[in-house]
Amino acid sequence: MVRVGVLGATGYAGVEVCRLLSGHKGVELTFLGSHSYGGQKISDIYTNLRGILDKECEEIDIDVIAKKCDLVFTALPHGASKEVIPALYEKGLTIIDLSGDFRYNDAKVYEQWYGQTHTAPELLDISVYGMPELYREKIKSAKLVGNPGCYTTCSILGLAPAVASKAVDTKNIIIDAKSGVTGAGRGAKIPNLYCEVNETMKAYGVATHKHTSEIEQEISILAGEEVRLSFTPHLIPLNRGILSTMYANLKKDITTEELCDIYKEFYKGERFVRVMPSGVLPEVKNVAGSNFIDIGVAVDKRLQRAIIVSCIDNLLKGAAGQAVQNMNIMLGFDEDTGIDMVPAYL
Amino acid sequence: MVRVGVLGATGYAGVEVCRLLSGHKGVELTFLGSHSYGGQKISDIYTNLRGILDKECEEIDIDVIAKKCDLVFTALPHGASKEVIPALYEKGLTIIDLSGDFRYNDAKVYEQWYGQTHTAPELLDISVYGMPELYREKIKSAKLVGNPGCYTTCSILGLAPAVASKAVDTKNIIIDAKSGVTGAGRGAKIPNLYCEVNETMKAYGVATHKHTSEIEQEISILAGEEVRLSFTPHLIPLNRGILSTMYANLKKDITTEELCDIYKEFYKGERFVRVMPSGVLPEVKNVAGSNFIDIGVAVDKRLQRAIIVSCIDNLLKGAAGQAVQNMNIMLGFDEDTGIDMVPAYL
Amino acid sequence: MVRVGVLGATGYAGVEVCRLLSGHKGVELTFLGSHSYGGQKISDIYTNLRGILDKECEEIDIDVIAKKCDLVFTALPHGASKEVIPALYEKGLTIIDLSGDFRYNDAKVYEQWYGQTHTAPELLDISVYGMPELYREKIKSAKLVGNPGCYTTCSILGLAPAVASKAVDTKNIIIDAKSGVTGAGRGAKIPNLYCEVNETMKAYGVATHKHTSEIEQEISILAGEEVRLSFTPHLIPLNRGILSTMYANLKKDITTEELCDIYKEFYKGERFVRVMPSGVLPEVKNVAGSNFIDIGVAVDKRLQRAIIVSCIDNLLKGAAGQAVQNMNIMLGFDEDTGIDMVPAYL
Amino acid sequence: MVRVGVLGATGYAGVEVCRLLSGHKGVELTFLGSHSYGGQKISDIYTNLRGILDKECEEIDIDVIAKKCDLVFTALPHGASKEVIPALYEKGLTIIDLSGDFRYNDAKVYEQWYGQTHTAPELLDISVYGMPELYREKIKSAKLVGNPGCYTTCSILGLAPAVASKAVDTKNIIIDAKSGVTGAGRGAKIPNLYCEVNETMKAYGVATHKHTSEIEQEISILAGEEVRLSFTPHLIPLNRGILSTMYANLKKDITTEELCDIYKEFYKGERFVRVMPSGVLPEVKNVAGSNFIDIGVAVDKRLQRAIIVSCIDNLLKGAAGQAVQNMNIMLGFDEDTGIDMVPAYL
Repeated sequence: MVRVGVLGATGYAGVEVCRLLSGHKGVELTFLGSHSYGGQKISDIYTNLRGILDKECEEIDIDVIAKKCDLVFTALPHGASKEVIPALYEKGLTIIDLSGDFRYNDAKVYEQWYGQTHTAPELLDISVYGMPELYREKIKSAKLVGNPGCYTTCSILGLAPAVASKAVDTKNIIIDAKSGVTGAGRGAKIPNLYCEVNETMKAYGVATHKHTSEIEQEISILAGEEVRLSFTPHLIPLNRGILSTMYANLKKDITTEELCDIYKEFYKGERFVRVMPSGVLPEVKNVAGSNFIDIGVAVDKRLQRAIIVSCIDNLLKGAAGQAVQNMNIMLGFDEDTGIDMVPAYL
Repeated sequence: MVRVGVLGATGYAGVEVCRLLSGHKGVELTFLGSHSYGGQKISDIYTNLRGILDKECEEIDIDVIAKKCDLVFTALPHGASKEVIPALYEKGLTIIDLSGDFRYNDAKVYEQWYGQTHTAPELLDISVYGMPELYREKIKSAKLVGNPGCYTTCSILGLAPAVASKAVDTKNIIIDAKSGVTGAGRGAKIPNLYCEVNETMKAYGVATHKHTSEIEQEISILAGEEVRLSFTPHLIPLNRGILSTMYANLKKDITTEELCDIYKEFYKGERFVRVMPSGVLPEVKNVAGSNFIDIGVAVDKRLQRAIIVSCIDNLLKGAAGQAVQNMNIMLGFDEDTGIDMVPAYL
Repeated sequence: MVRVGVLGATGYAGVEVCRLLSGHKGVELTFLGSHSYGGQKISDIYTNLRGILDKECEEIDIDVIAKKCDLVFTALPHGASKEVIPALYEKGLTIIDLSGDFRYNDAKVYEQWYGQTHTAPELLDISVYGMPELYREKIKSAKLVGNPGCYTTCSILGLAPAVASKAVDTKNIIIDAKSGVTGAGRGAKIPNLYCEVNETMKAYGVATHKHTSEIEQEISILAGEEVRLSFTPHLIPLNRGILSTMYANLKKDITTEELCDIYKEFYKGERFVRVMPSGVLPEVKNVAGSNFIDIGVAVDKRLQRAIIVSCIDNLLKGAAGQAVQNMNIMLGFDEDTGIDMVPAYL
Repeated sequence: MVRVGVLGATGYAGVEVCRLLSGHKGVELTFLGSHSYGGQKISDIYTNLRGILDKECEEIDIDVIAKKCDLVFTALPHGASKEVIPALYEKGLTIIDLSGDFRYNDAKVYEQWYGQTHTAPELLDISVYGMPELYREKIKSAKLVGNPGCYTTCSILGLAPAVASKAVDTKNIIIDAKSGVTGAGRGAKIPNLYCEVNETMKAYGVATHKHTSEIEQEISILAGEEVRLSFTPHLIPLNRGILSTMYANLKKDITTEELCDIYKEFYKGERFVRVMPSGVLPEVKNVAGSNFIDIGVAVDKRLQRAIIVSCIDNLLKGAAGQAVQNMNIMLGFDEDTGIDMVPAYL
């Protein structure tokens, strides 16, 4: 059994990692780190885990973690990860970081969009972007994985085949994304209160959201040229799920069916990508509770424009599920071990 | 124009008073008191009010309030009202208090259920319980009104005719109440976060909720004997609305229709009470957004038991609406001035 | 009192007209037409109206309507309106039609997008597009108004100032719109069931939705050139509200503040349009329950692109509210009579 | 591999059985019966199953089923099961019926509450009530199981220890139950539409709901005397979950802790029953998505009354999950095979 720790175990992403690993056959949860709830059982905070994972949370202590763990998930706030990961890395631990801190190839981009100095830029060369569909080989031998963001997973995987195949112009790409509220985390803030979110919707971070830079990095690599695009996130009253609607002008005169085939070919054999049949678009309930990303495409012949829609569960394929997928790849397990949940529809 | 102040104007009940009064023809909002948002426009906090009520909030200052206002609504937390109301009362202001502090006839009951000393017990003799259907005459000349709680309004008005008519035994009364989340207020607390409340439900305050004592006080008066009963509140994932399901054993062998008639007779002429036709039970959407209370009854002949269901909008008939209704009575306006909204169904 | 009829009174838009008019001082509801519920009281179907509007619904009969009414709202399905309106018009009635049948200048466009022959094309020359902010003068003397669609109201008013001022390029306009479920109407269909809609979201009608043509018609007029654009509607789990997020490339190098000023100028004096301060974007809860449209703009300098966000209550400014606004204009009432509701936030 | 059929595979309970069995190691789905969708793939109707269970649905044909299956789940409407089960039984198939048709010991009780003649009363002697916590030994060798209802599972298991231990008086038992909307099934009816259910709540079937009789049957057996009780179901705006709040007067002077111990002892070793620690009450989100029932108790010393709260996922422990649990027992599999999901909290 591989000994695994989770730092930030009592955040929404952290506890989802714990939940998934509580049923995983190849690993053992040996350390749950929590600033807020040190000394308390995780099952007293997340009462769903009663009788399933009654383990106590501990303050984060590098030496203790190094002794108890082989691999660590860091589900800490953006900026906090980079303060603790260098020490973990030095101790020889394998690390999967769920924050934005190690997703970038260029520290400058990070610093510009996150508004802070990157204190461990040397680790950016070592870290691998943890998107298995694009970087599986590198992930296999990675010691530090920057696990992608939720919006970014949904958007990058949604655009990748169209961009990589040069089917679309990269000049006018628009990503209009909608997210459930778990994406906002468990902070006790007025804007996240039930009555402030229920029966309403809003755009936020317009033209300034951090994930823009992460999407641009990967789409630029896929396109082989620098791409700049619009990304607009929206807050929607539901718990789990992201739906990205993406618009790009066609460079080739292709049909919906042909574009669909490009997607099927690109994702052939991928365990967690489901390309919808031509004419069908995905919806959130078909992926919620699972590690799937569903992608559908439509060509608007009138406008010579592709509209691509993709859906994920933001806590699973958009965070904890993908993190476990990365772990499985790194440790040589079957890629779907512990994350083969069938989505529930209801 | 009567000059009106609202203390605690940025809480959910306070802002609802402001919203109602912004369209009221007989009064003028001259003071908005807020500890948290002094110096900010209320329309920057509750952005729905933009262009409608752009007035600035102020720190609470008795002298300023006394100069600016004739009548004051206090929508402060339980316990805080009794610290400020004696001074307002001394200044000659008319006061409608939305907290629990001046709803009791006996300070000891308050102290037992609220766990604190009542620092202005002498005002309990002066204050009138602000339930127009039971105390309209007293309200007309009141200088201090203790505006009833949300659960209590729904439950007391739901039980009153059955109890007053001696149709039911008072020994085994059960009130099982369900509330939307606005009842929990705007505090930035984890249990009130969207993701903690959505797609779940729970009971809380079982056997200990403060409102039990307020209901028992009024039901005892109506029954002419001391009544003790079970009251269990539940949190339900919706914004507005309380539904109380009440159970009482019949003392008389009556039909649903006869019980229904007792209710219709009791509430004859009441502007805001709608007794459902025999065989019909109310539901929340028929009252949400309005000052109505809808009440329906059913007799279970098999068990000789009455089941009574009542519904209100907790922010309106359960708080701000009833407070304005009281104000209208006190100031001699038509009782439905400013609160004649037609419920929206959708 | 003007005598008013509502055909299709038991649909979601129809009953909303009834609800608004039940409190309107200048009109009297004299005929409620319903195919499905003829002979039943509307308050037995929409139980919120109990005690407020207990009027019986009747089968649609032109002669009866002509005798009983001066003005008629037709809230019938697309395609059904055009079968009944010519006869009503011939009888001399004033008509406000909430379907798509009389919104078009060109019957061919209607036929292409609605997939049916327009049987009363001659009335298209007479009908006025009922958007007061663009056509107030014409509406004043109109005998037949084609009341705009919900998505279209939100999108056209959101884009109008940017397009009319030539601030944006009309080549790459994208409208990504999100709607609550009341927009789908009251049909008993599986896709509209609670459990099929709750906790999910989806795009629909991609590249083919009827409202595209209505938006293109009006934006083309505003632009002074033929405009074709992408419009993608989404179904979101909430009752009321549409949020449109619109993208257009800038033709001029302007700031958010300057674009904001263009909007403020364009809508100066409009009772129901609120342009957000620079830097602020609207959200649905600030308009739900009211006849307002809130509009905010952001300029993405990096991409030289404008992002415009607009919100309405789809049943009010997007249907019944705007219809009553049109009626007020046509009958010479104050434009906000009966529709001056303050949005509720919660 | 045991060959398993599901009749009524495209209802909410039926498809949940399919979803659970699609990941079950000991069985193979060999027949999916559907009146409405014969000839269509189940994954075209429940699109979450795409790529997971792409099997075609078939019309119900006894001979075909007998050839293809060893065991059959019947998830048909109440009344329809009893028309098809005798023939299946005669063919030697093992049957787990999710309707109410084979849950009763006495055909007369069924006929009285279901308003129809029981056409196969002889099978009631053979059928076993499928509640493993009460009838595990009988289930092991059963050929026909009447799988309990959702409300009844939640209520009977919630009351069983209190009643069996004679801790409570059986005279004034009140069950106030609240259910999510999946319990209403997939019928295309107006009252189940999103906009009719969202942001509201209501009681229904007051004093007449079928499940009353099923609860009374089992509580009477546990009590050793005939028990009649109040059961009131409510419809609550969420997808999955039932919460039952139960009231019973104490016969013994016991504390919350002592009552809690009675429950812990009663359910010792039960895989799917979690008794909350003294002072803790359960909530729906801790069981949703799992086969658990969580139960908490409180003693109101003031009133000498026990309040018991229990929660289940109505589609799992309340239907499909319990059905699979029964199947596991009947086939000798580990009782949690295929139903060991960890509840998700969010």
